[in-house]
Amino acid sequence: MKNNVYSKKELYSKGAQKIFKGDAKEAAFLLGGIGTGNVSIGARGDLRDWEIFNSPNKGNSLPYTFFSIWLKPEGRKPISKILESKFEPPYELKGQGTKFVDLPGLPRFDSSTLRSEYPFVNVDLLDEEVPMLVELEAFTPFIPLNTDDSSIPGAIIRYKIKNVSEKKVDVSIAGSLANVIGLGDYNFFSKDEKIGELKNEYKDAGIAKGLFYTNTGISKEDSKFGSMALVTRDLNTTYKTEWLNTGWFDGPQDFWNDFCSDGKLINGPVNEDSKGVIASATRSKFKIGSLGIFHNILPGEEKVFEFILTWHFPNRTNNWENWDIGLSFCSDCGNDNRKTIKNYYGKKFKNAWDVSDYLISNMGRLEKSTKDFSTILYDTTLPNYVIEAIANNITVLRSNTCFRIEDGTFLGWEGTCSDSGCCAGSCTHVWNYSQTLAFLFPELEQTMRRVEFNLETDDDGEMAFRTYKVFGKKKWDTLPAVDGQMGSIVRLYRDWKISGSNNLIKDLWNNASKALDFAFSYWDTDGDYVLDGKQHTTYDIEFYGPNSYSNSLFFAALKAGIEMASFMKDKEHVEKYSKALEEGSKKLDSLTWNGEYFIQHLPEIDNYNYQYGEGCLSDQLFGQLFAHLVGIGYVLPKDHVKKAIHSVFKYNFKDNLKNHHNVYRAYAINDEKALVVCSWPKGSKPKSPFTYSDENWTGSEYQVATHLIYEGFVDEGLTLVKAVRDRFDGYRRNPWNEIECGNHYVRSMASWGLLIALGGYKFDMVKGEISFDPVINKDKFSTFWSTGKAWGKYSQEKNSKTGKIKWNIEVLYGDLKDTKINNNYIS
Amino acid sequence: MKNNVYSKKELYSKGAQKIFKGDAKEAAFLLGGIGTGNVSIGARGDLRDWEIFNSPNKGNSLPYTFFSIWLKPEGRKPISKILESKFEPPYELKGQGTKFVDLPGLPRFDSSTLRSEYPFVNVDLLDEEVPMLVELEAFTPFIPLNTDDSSIPGAIIRYKIKNVSEKKVDVSIAGSLANVIGLGDYNFFSKDEKIGELKNEYKDAGIAKGLFYTNTGISKEDSKFGSMALVTRDLNTTYKTEWLNTGWFDGPQDFWNDFCSDGKLINGPVNEDSKGVIASATRSKFKIGSLGIFHNILPGEEKVFEFILTWHFPNRTNNWENWDIGLSFCSDCGNDNRKTIKNYYGKKFKNAWDVSDYLISNMGRLEKSTKDFSTILYDTTLPNYVIEAIANNITVLRSNTCFRIEDGTFLGWEGTCSDSGCCAGSCTHVWNYSQTLAFLFPELEQTMRRVEFNLETDDDGEMAFRTYKVFGKKKWDTLPAVDGQMGSIVRLYRDWKISGSNNLIKDLWNNASKALDFAFSYWDTDGDYVLDGKQHTTYDIEFYGPNSYSNSLFFAALKAGIEMASFMKDKEHVEKYSKALEEGSKKLDSLTWNGEYFIQHLPEIDNYNYQYGEGCLSDQLFGQLFAHLVGIGYVLPKDHVKKAIHSVFKYNFKDNLKNHHNVYRAYAINDEKALVVCSWPKGSKPKSPFTYSDENWTGSEYQVATHLIYEGFVDEGLTLVKAVRDRFDGYRRNPWNEIECGNHYVRSMASWGLLIALGGYKFDMVKGEISFDPVINKDKFSTFWSTGKAWGKYSQEKNSKTGKIKWNIEVLYGDLKDTKINNNYIS
Repeated sequence: MKNNVYSKKELYSKGAQKIFKGDAKEAAFLLGGIGTGNVSIGARGDLRDWEIFNSPNKGNSLPYTFFSIWLKPEGRKPISKILESKFEPPYELKGQGTKFVDLPGLPRFDSSTLRSEYPFVNVDLLDEEVPMLVELEAFTPFIPLNTDDSSIPGAIIRYKIKNVSEKKVDVSIAGSLANVIGLGDYNFFSKDEKIGELKNEYKDAGIAKGLFYTNTGISKEDSKFGSMALVTRDLNTTYKTEWLNTGWFDGPQDFWNDFCSDGKLINGPVNEDSKGVIASATRSKFKIGSLGIFHNILPGEEKVFEFILTWHFPNRTNNWENWDIGLSFCSDCGNDNRKTIKNYYGKKFKNAWDVSDYLISNMGRLEKSTKDFSTILYDTTLPNYVIEAIANNITVLRSNTCFRIEDGTFLGWEGTCSDSGCCAGSCTHVWNYSQTLAFLFPELEQTMRRVEFNLETDDDGEMAFRTYKVFGKKKWDTLPAVDGQMGSIVRLYRDWKISGSNNLIKDLWNNASKALDFAFSYWDTDGDYVLDGKQHTTYDIEFYGPNSYSNSLFFAALKAGIEMASFMKDKEHVEKYSKALEEGSKKLDSLTWNGEYFIQHLPEIDNYNYQYGEGCLSDQLFGQLFAHLVGIGYVLPKDHVKKAIHSVFKYNFKDNLKNHHNVYRAYAINDEKALVVCSWPKGSKPKSPFTYSDENWTGSEYQVATHLIYEGFVDEGLTLVKAVRDRFDGYRRNPWNEIECGNHYVRSMASWGLLIALGGYKFDMVKGEISFDPVINKDKFSTFWSTGKAWGKYSQEKNSKTGKIKWNIEVLYGDLKDTKINNNYIS
Repeated sequence: MKNNVYSKKELYSKGAQKIFKGDAKEAAFLLGGIGTGNVSIGARGDLRDWEIFNSPNKGNSLPYTFFSIWLKPEGRKPISKILESKFEPPYELKGQGTKFVDLPGLPRFDSSTLRSEYPFVNVDLLDEEVPMLVELEAFTPFIPLNTDDSSIPGAIIRYKIKNVSEKKVDVSIAGSLANVIGLGDYNFFSKDEKIGELKNEYKDAGIAKGLFYTNTGISKEDSKFGSMALVTRDLNTTYKTEWLNTGWFDGPQDFWNDFCSDGKLINGPVNEDSKGVIASATRSKFKIGSLGIFHNILPGEEKVFEFILTWHFPNRTNNWENWDIGLSFCSDCGNDNRKTIKNYYGKKFKNAWDVSDYLISNMGRLEKSTKDFSTILYDTTLPNYVIEAIANNITVLRSNTCFRIEDGTFLGWEGTCSDSGCCAGSCTHVWNYSQTLAFLFPELEQTMRRVEFNLETDDDGEMAFRTYKVFGKKKWDTLPAVDGQMGSIVRLYRDWKISGSNNLIKDLWNNASKALDFAFSYWDTDGDYVLDGKQHTTYDIEFYGPNSYSNSLFFAALKAGIEMASFMKDKEHVEKYSKALEEGSKKLDSLTWNGEYFIQHLPEIDNYNYQYGEGCLSDQLFGQLFAHLVGIGYVLPKDHVKKAIHSVFKYNFKDNLKNHHNVYRAYAINDEKALVVCSWPKGSKPKSPFTYSDENWTGSEYQVATHLIYEGFVDEGLTLVKAVRDRFDGYRRNPWNEIECGNHYVRSMASWGLLIALGGYKFDMVKGEISFDPVINKDKFSTFWSTGKAWGKYSQEKNSKTGKIKWNIEVLYGDLKDTKINNNYIS
C-alpha cells in the first residue's frame, strides 16, 4: 500500500472513540429530532447553536441560557458555578470582550471532556474545589424505523452528581432559559422592535412541572409562532418565572445573588422602578426564567438532576427559504413570500408543553430503544473511526439540512450555510451518495422517490434535479442532471429491496421507466447506448462525450431497471435495457479504458471548458459502487473495475497536501490526508479543468473507500476513511459536521455504505432474504443491521476449538418473520 | 507586595518585545494613518480587516488579495507559494470550509513570526523548501507633531529576500488586490447589485507604476466614492490589470497557472465566453489585478521588493453613523441621512494615485522621522511591557475609533464594534483618561477642547458630554457628566502647558470658566464646595452624595482653573476657586475618608440603585492622578492619597480571577490578573451596585498604575501594567487592541501617563521649562519625550567612577530653543 500511511494496527483495531477536551472548540453535538431543529452541546458542556427556529443558525446563542450548580458540603462554605468548563481563548468577541450574555465573568469548572455514543452525548466536568463527579448526559430519542419517535423537538438533559467526599453535600442545579419567541435577534442593544407579548408561566401538571414560554401576540400561522418549555419530573424544585428586569445587569445580578445564597430560587418581583437614566433603556426585550432542582447527596451516593427541554415552532416558510445565491435562473427559489406550511412535528404536537408531556410519558420506551440502537452500533468489532464515520454523519438527518412538511414528505438541502439552507430542492445528484436515511428510515427515503418520479418527472421523462413543485411552485427550469436522474432509478431499486414494498414499484414504475428512457433520447446522441451528450452533473458543469461517471450510473440504472421491469412484467423495457446494458458497457469500455482507469473520451477537449479528459476521476465508478451496494453486481468489466478503483486510490489519495495546489474550496489543507476529486497523473490537465477538481469531498472519499472494500482493497478503503476522520478532531473541524457546500452536507451520508460493505450485508426483502459476509474481523464480528421491517444486531464468532464460525442474530425492533438469514430461517 | 505576583527581575528588566507565531490568531497590526482607516497584518503575514471604507469592519477581507512568491534556484524546479504561513485551526468557516477567496488550498510557508516596533511591523516567513530568508516589513508614516504626514491613507509593504543558498535564485513577487470600490459586500454569491463601473488601470508615471482602481459610476459626493492603488518604484515589473472573469474559479486558476509558469504575469484577456450553464452566473462582481516585481538574487545577496498600497475614500457620512444602540433618548444620533462630509485626508489628496505619488516623493524624509520616533521609543531602559502598553495603544489614534473632518477637527468614538462605531461624540468622560494624543499631536487634542468649550458648552456652563453639534445636529439632550466636564478643564490646562499656546486659553477661558462654575450651581447642592448632586459619570449611571471620584476631578479642575484664571487676570475666579478648593477638599476628606480609602458618603444608600457606598473604587482618585500628570500637585491630603491608592491596589487587584464573580462584561477571566473597578473589602456591597463594578478596564488599570508610581509604589504600579499586558498575548486577545466597550478603546490611552510618571517628566511650555526625574533605572535611563514644539530623546547615565549622573537631550523633530531643560538652557 502506498507509503503505508497507517499501520495495520491503526487500521484494524477497534480502539476507543475520540474524546474532546474543553478547548476543542469546534466540537458541537447536535440534539434534536428529524426535522425539528437543534441545540448543540459544546465540549465545555455549553449549550450553543440554537437552530430551533426553522432555520440554520450556527453561532446563535440564547442570552443568559445555561445550567448552574450550587453545592454546600456539610460544614463548609457553598460553591456556585456555571456547569461549563472555563472559557478558552480567544477571549474577544466583536469588540465587546467575551459576550456578556454568556456571563463569562462567573466561575466555571476547571476542565471538561466530551464523548459520545450517538445519539447520546456526555460531558464530564472537573474542578479541584468540587468534591463531586459531575456528568452531563443528553440525548434526543432516535429509533430507526420509528419515524415519529425520532422526530421529537426536544432533548433530555441530565446532570449526574456523585458525592465522592466524606460529607453530605446539599446540591442545587438550576437551568436558566431565555424566552426569545418571535424576537428577530438577541442582541442586548438591538433596535429590533418587540414582537408580540412574551409570556413565561410556571406550570405544575402532575407528572411534570416547570416553565412554559409563549408569545401571545403572534398569530398561529406566523413562522415565528411557537413555544418552549423547560420541565422536570423531579419533586424538589424551586423556580423564578422571570428574572428582575429593571435594566442594566440587575437581572443576572439578582438571579446570581439569589442562587448563591442557598441554591434555592425566589420567584420575586420583575419590574421595580428603574432608577438610572440609561437603565430603563437597557431593560431586556427577552425574558429569562430559571428552574431549580435540589437534593442532598450522601457520601458515595449519586443523584440525577433531570431536565426536559422542548420547543415547538410549528410553521415554516412554504418554500426553500432564503436561498439567495444570486444565480439568475433561480428567480423563483428566493424568499418570495411569507406563506407558511406546517412542519410534520407541528401537526403531531400542540405545543412545547405537549412535547414534554409525551417525552415524559414515554420516557422508558423511548430511552430503551434509543439505547438499544446506540449499544449495537458501538458494540461492534469495526474500527472506531469507521463507526465514527457511520454514526456521526447520522447528524445530517437531524440537522437543519433536512426537514419534513405537513404531509410527511421528507426534504433536504444539500447542506446549510450559517443562517440559511444551501442549495435547495433535495438535489438528486447529491442525495445520490447518501445511504443513511435509506437504511434507517426507508419510509422517509421513499417519500423522496415519490417526489422525484411522480411530481418532478415530465411526461417525456425529464426530471428536475431540485424539487420546487413540492411547494406548489413551478418546475425548476434548468438542464436535467444525468447523475441524479440515473441514480434515482438505482435508489428506487434499493428502496424496494430494503423494504420489500412492491407497491412502491407499482406506484412509480411508469414514471421511473420514462425517466430512464429519457437518457436514451437526450444523452445518447448517436444511439450506441453510451451517454455522450451535454451531461449536467454534480460538479455543477456539463460533461461532454463518453465517460464512466455518467455511464456507470446509466448502466447501474439499466441493470436495476431490468429487475424492476421484470417484476412489472414490462417485457419491452426488459429487452430494451438488457440490450443497452450489454452493448453500452462494452462500447464505453472500449472508448474510455486507458489501461489503468477510465478517462473521458473527448478528443476535441479544447473546444470545451470544465472537462477532465485524460484525468483520473475519483467518482469514475460511482455507478458501479452503487450497483454493488444494492446487490446487482458488475456493470463494467470486473478486471477493469478493480484496476481502476485501485488507480483512483493510487493517484488521487494524497498523504500530505502541503504542496497540493487547489484554487477551489479547501476541505483539507496543510499536512492533512485526502482523496482529491481528480488528478492528471499522465499530464494533460486542461487549462480550465472542471470546477472542484482539486478539492476533496468526504462523500466521494467514502464512496471510493466503500468501493475499494468491495473490490478487496480493504487496507486502502480503511485508509481513506481514517484519513477523513483524522481531520475532524474538534480543533480543526466539528466531528459532527462534515462540510462541503454547507454544514452537515448530505453527501457525507455515503459513509453508511461502509457498514454495508464491511459486513458483507446483502438484503432482498422482496424475496425475504438477508445475509452477512464480514470483510474484516470475521472471527469475532458484530454489527448493526436494518431492513425496512426490523433492525438489530448480527454477530459471528469462530469457535477456537472447532474452527467453525457460529453466527447469531438479535432483533431489537420490528420483526423478521419469514425472512431467511444467511440462508436459514430463524424462529 | 501582595503575593509577590512578579519577581523584581520580571518587573524591572527591559526584556524583549513579544513575538507572535503564526498561530497567534488574535494578533493583528493596524496599518494606516490618523483618520484614514486601516488594513491589518496578521501573524501569518496575511492582510486582514480591511477597514478603509470609512467604517470599522473587523473581519472584512478582500477576495483574492494577497502577495505570492515564485522562486527558481538555478538548476532546480520553481516553487510558488502565497506569502503567508499556513492556515491554523479551525479550518471551518460558515459552513463552506475555509473561505475560498482566501485561496486556502494553495501552498504557504511552514511558519512565521511577527514582531513590531511601532509603527513598524515585521513578519519572518520560514519554509524548509525555500532557500531564502523572507521578511515582510510594513509601516505607515507616523511622526509626532506632524499631523499631515501622520494622516496618509496608505502603507509601504516590503519583502526583503535574502539568498542563503549557493545558487543564484530568480525571484518574482506579485501583489494581487481586489477592486471592490462601491460594492456592498464581497461575498462570492452575493445578490448585491453591481454599483457603478469598476475600472482597473495600469499606469506608468515615471517614479511610480502600478495599478490604479476607480469606480467610474459613483458620484463624487457619495460615501462609497473613492480609489485604490498598488504601485512600486521598481523597474522590473509585470502585471495583469484584470484577472480572467469567465466564471467559477477560472480567474484564480488562470492567474496561478500564469504565475507558477515563470513568475511573470501576462496581461491577458478578461472575458472569454463562459461555457458552463452556471459559469456565467458565477462571474465575480469585483475585479482583481496583480502587480509583479522580479529580480535575480545572487548567493548572499538581499533584495527588497517594495509595494505601496494606498486608498482614498474621501467622504464620510455627516454624522455619527450607525450608532444604533437603541437608547430612546438617542433618536438624533442614528443613521438619519446620507449627506457626506469630507475626511481631512480627502481634502489633502486628489485620489489614491496622488497619495502614492506623495509617499514615494517624500519616502526618505517620512521614513526617517518615523524611524527616529520608533527608535527612541524602543531604545529605552523602561521594561518591555511598559513600552508595549505605551506604544501599542497609539493604535487607537490610527484606528477607526478616531477620525478627522474637513475643517481639521479631530473626533472620536469611545471604541468600535465590529462594523460600526461604539458610543459616539468624543465622549468627555472616556477621553478624560487618554493622554497619548495630547502628548503626540497637541494640535489635534486642542480641537477637542475647542469643540467642548466653544461649541458644546451652553451659556449657563452645561456641557454636552457627546458632541453632535459638530455635525450641525442639535445638542445631545441628556444629563451633563460631572467627570467629563471637570476633566475637560484639567485637559485644557494640560494642553496649554504642553503647547505653551496662550491663545488657547484666551480663546476658551470664558466658556471654560462657565463650565467650571456650572459645577457650583448644579452639582453642589448645599454650597459646601463638595459636589453631591445627581452626578452622571463614566459608569453610565448617576452617583449621589459626596464621593472622591467626582470631587477629585472637581478639585483638580479648581486648581487648574486658578492657574488659568491667574493668567487671564480673572481675579474673581481665582478667589472663588481658591476658596472652594480649600474648603471643599477638607470637607470631602472629612466626609469620605474611612481610614484606608475614600468611600461614597451616602447614608440612605438603599434609596438609590447603582451606587458604591462603602466600596473601594479604583478610580476614586482619578482627579488626583490627573493633577499629578499635569503638574499641579495634591488636591487632597497627601497621606490619605498615598494610603488610598495603595488600598486600591491591595483590595482591587486580583492575582487570579477564577473565583471572582462578575455578571457584567468580562475583560479578564479565568486565571488572569486584573484590577477590578470596585470592591467591598468591608462588606456592605449594595444589592444592585453600580454597573460595571466587577469588571476591569485597562484605562483604569493604567491610571491607577500611574498614580501608584507617582506615590512611590512603583512595584505595585508596574505589577498592574504587566498584568494587563500579559492578557494581550495574541492568543487570548490582540496586542494592538485593548477592548472595553468596543475595539481600540480610547480609555486605554491612559497608558501614555506611564511614560510621563516613570520619567518624572514635567513640562511647562508656558514658562519654557521641561525636566526629568526618572523613577526607575536612574543610573542608565533613556526615554522619548515630547512637547508641543519638539520631540526627541532624553538619556542620563551614572558615571561609574564619579557616581555623578550625566544627562543628555536630543531633539529629533522641531526645536527647543528658549526652553530650560532640567533647569539649564541648551544651545
